[in-house]
Amino acid sequence: MSPAAVKKQIHFNAFLMNCVAHLAPGQWTAEHDRATDYLKPDYWTDLARLLERGRFDAVFLADVLGIYDVYGASPDSALRTAAQVPMNDPLALIPLMSQVTQHLCFGVTCSLSYEHPYTFARRISTLDHLTSGRIAWNIVTSYLDSAARNIGLDRQLSHDERYDVADEYMEVCYKLWEGSWEDGAVVKDRVRGVYADPSKIHAIAHAGRYYKVPGIHLCEPSSQRTPVLFQAGSSGRGKHFAGNHAECVFVAAPTRDIVKRNVADIRAQAAALGRNGETDVLIFAMFTVIVGRTTQEAHDKLEQYRARASHEGAATLLSGWTGIDLATYQPDDTLTYVDTDAGRSALASFSSADPTRTWTVDEAIDFVSIGGRGPVIAGTSTEVADELEEWIDETGLDGFNLAYVSAHQTFEDIVELLIPELQRRGRYRDEYEPGTYRQKLFARGARLPASHPGSRYRKHEKPTSEPVVNAHS
Amino acid sequence: MSPAAVKKQIHFNAFLMNCVAHLAPGQWTAEHDRATDYLKPDYWTDLARLLERGRFDAVFLADVLGIYDVYGASPDSALRTAAQVPMNDPLALIPLMSQVTQHLCFGVTCSLSYEHPYTFARRISTLDHLTSGRIAWNIVTSYLDSAARNIGLDRQLSHDERYDVADEYMEVCYKLWEGSWEDGAVVKDRVRGVYADPSKIHAIAHAGRYYKVPGIHLCEPSSQRTPVLFQAGSSGRGKHFAGNHAECVFVAAPTRDIVKRNVADIRAQAAALGRNGETDVLIFAMFTVIVGRTTQEAHDKLEQYRARASHEGAATLLSGWTGIDLATYQPDDTLTYVDTDAGRSALASFSSADPTRTWTVDEAIDFVSIGGRGPVIAGTSTEVADELEEWIDETGLDGFNLAYVSAHQTFEDIVELLIPELQRRGRYRDEYEPGTYRQKLFARGARLPASHPGSRYRKHEKPTSEPVVNAHS
Repeated sequence: MSPAAVKKQIHFNAFLMNCVAHLAPGQWTAEHDRATDYLKPDYWTDLARLLERGRFDAVFLADVLGIYDVYGASPDSALRTAAQVPMNDPLALIPLMSQVTQHLCFGVTCSLSYEHPYTFARRISTLDHLTSGRIAWNIVTSYLDSAARNIGLDRQLSHDERYDVADEYMEVCYKLWEGSWEDGAVVKDRVRGVYADPSKIHAIAHAGRYYKVPGIHLCEPSSQRTPVLFQAGSSGRGKHFAGNHAECVFVAAPTRDIVKRNVADIRAQAAALGRNGETDVLIFAMFTVIVGRTTQEAHDKLEQYRARASHEGAATLLSGWTGIDLATYQPDDTLTYVDTDAGRSALASFSSADPTRTWTVDEAIDFVSIGGRGPVIAGTSTEVADELEEWIDETGLDGFNLAYVSAHQTFEDIVELLIPELQRRGRYRDEYEPGTYRQKLFARGARLPASHPGSRYRKHEKPTSEPVVNAHS
Repeated sequence: MSPAAVKKQIHFNAFLMNCVAHLAPGQWTAEHDRATDYLKPDYWTDLARLLERGRFDAVFLADVLGIYDVYGASPDSALRTAAQVPMNDPLALIPLMSQVTQHLCFGVTCSLSYEHPYTFARRISTLDHLTSGRIAWNIVTSYLDSAARNIGLDRQLSHDERYDVADEYMEVCYKLWEGSWEDGAVVKDRVRGVYADPSKIHAIAHAGRYYKVPGIHLCEPSSQRTPVLFQAGSSGRGKHFAGNHAECVFVAAPTRDIVKRNVADIRAQAAALGRNGETDVLIFAMFTVIVGRTTQEAHDKLEQYRARASHEGAATLLSGWTGIDLATYQPDDTLTYVDTDAGRSALASFSSADPTRTWTVDEAIDFVSIGGRGPVIAGTSTEVADELEEWIDETGLDGFNLAYVSAHQTFEDIVELLIPELQRRGRYRDEYEPGTYRQKLFARGARLPASHPGSRYRKHEKPTSEPVVNAHS
């Protein structure tokens, strides 16, 4: 088979939060919707089993440590509509879901502004151990002022300083995960009574501008050491951070042309930093996919979803994302697209909106009420598969973070209808690749590749040729 | 039955850490010992099933965020013997164990010096939701300097200032858990599309000396709201803190006379603070129990354990607990008992040592090599039950935190041999009480009782007569 005949595989993550209304406010009001069961373990274990049956890469858990209080200058609308509040801790869900699955992986969003890297690194290593290496971390530098205030800061750090802190935070994590314990440090010698060889375990002696961590990592090395790293930076500084650290990047998906340019940018940025832009970085776009047995059924479903959507909830989310109180606008006021570096002005945050047309405030709110800022596709499995293939092939994307509308109906439809179609087309794995999350994604070693900056923090290690794990043929 | 004929029930917690060697260094070297499986989920789920079969109250997870580097002024001996390092995050184990059990509860040690109360309160509420109210928190103000250094402090706060911080930390937690969301705030009205009623959800507006938290709690109320509160303070200031906040207290158990005095102190302290010293506070002592089918078998087991114990590991732990580098002493040097308020001078930390006799350094190290600072009892189920009953009846204790020597052999012996004997004597539950951890412990409501200071932070609530849950008859 010639290389040109090999079709690029499509990766799916399921995109959720530990809350009632993530990106489709109002849907929880349907009798059949399970979103209000988010407090019950079965909600998550049933989901995990379903997604593993559908050979999803991962459950991707977003998180936000604060409340959407921009709309109406009050948290009331968020609370009324359960728009990302209440919001429980995502980390606790991973042991539940990993216990009922073998291959499904878990991405978790943790804002590095709000936990010290010394304790955070231990939390992640613990999960990587308990899941045999099925963990990814979505690196976030938080964006809700309300979150910053609640941990005692008067306001957030400036956008650029947040990235300076983030770079140092990553350095501390790499030192702990990669540099502290050499391979072979854990000897488990029952005869001599030696569990670990202290000469191969190193205090990291980090003394930087923001953090001081003199000691060793408290955990022995897990399969992946550093978890798979995700990032969603879209600003200039954010793209540089992603180009440097991220193994997987989320991009906004307004139009194919814009995505294609963003994808090329990210790969070029990674290449400029000494990595392979094509093979070292996978790029995902957020999408919402409504699949029906017929075109009509899919569109009817979407209509029902739109009828049930909460306008107030969507306005709350969009106000939070943009930092603009949409309650102070008239429904017919038009929004303008301003592509700022901070990415927080009107349509620039409203990322899936076509910037070439005019949007009224109400149109924008209705648009985000299903699937948030990502595009929504409704159709038969054939129609949806066609469109996803086109997106992949035209833009250079590697996969999608699929949001749900109805819990767990949206994912059930995808697993039952769409995935078999993509498998028939040779576009989607029939079986999981063996090994850790990183091995499944990149079909090479469990550890960071030598091209990744985190690998530079390894100590006293001979460069090993990482064993190549072949993808399922 | 007259009240005098009702024998006091004995409570058991299983005392563990997410590590290889907790309180019995060296035991992991036995082929049959499972301690080196601490990285595998089955190690914990098997344990949880076993303990639920034995009707234990809870798995109690200790934690320490630092390394024992006092002995030999180096972390090397701790690493060699796996003495509480590597040490993984305890929180991740709770969803694993709760998923395979229905009644077993989970106590977790979290040092309040190292996480902001706003994020910590969310972690605990999340676990209380996912376990239907089976969570307790062991409040610790940390004691290892190495831990403080690694989160960027040059050294720890002074002992007394730590308790000032702790009091304010508790205040923030109570405001979030008890005061932020009224009962009835979550309405889940599918017709009106209202999940929560903002008029019943309150920003806590906390602005104290150490913490500023203006916002609401991010989680809706869990069954218990505030988890069951454990504390182990033994200093004067620590006893005051425990008398105020703790629903369960750990005490050191050197001799019955001393324990009896401590128990009376704690109950008096609670009573002086307006609580019922007898019914509002349960008191537990750390014990290690080796049960055999015959006296000989039990003593042989203990001998084998002692033969396998790591002297280096025990010296490392004891040096860490006392702050005294025992490597600088001769084996025959004698230790003196100094009952300081800080509790860190020699035998004062070595709490189960009889202070009335002379101890050499080597004797003390050998003593703690099995079961740490707690007493060790070996015998048949009859002999052990006799002794535990005497401790309970003579000292006023309510139960024991049982340490293990061999994983999971120690607990298997207890479940198979000791518990049936205690049940025959009417001293131990045959079946679990229904409800949450607090309901199982106190046979009353799931929430903090009105006598607890945390209950004062409730807002806009009519004082409810909490439903009395009857203990199993």
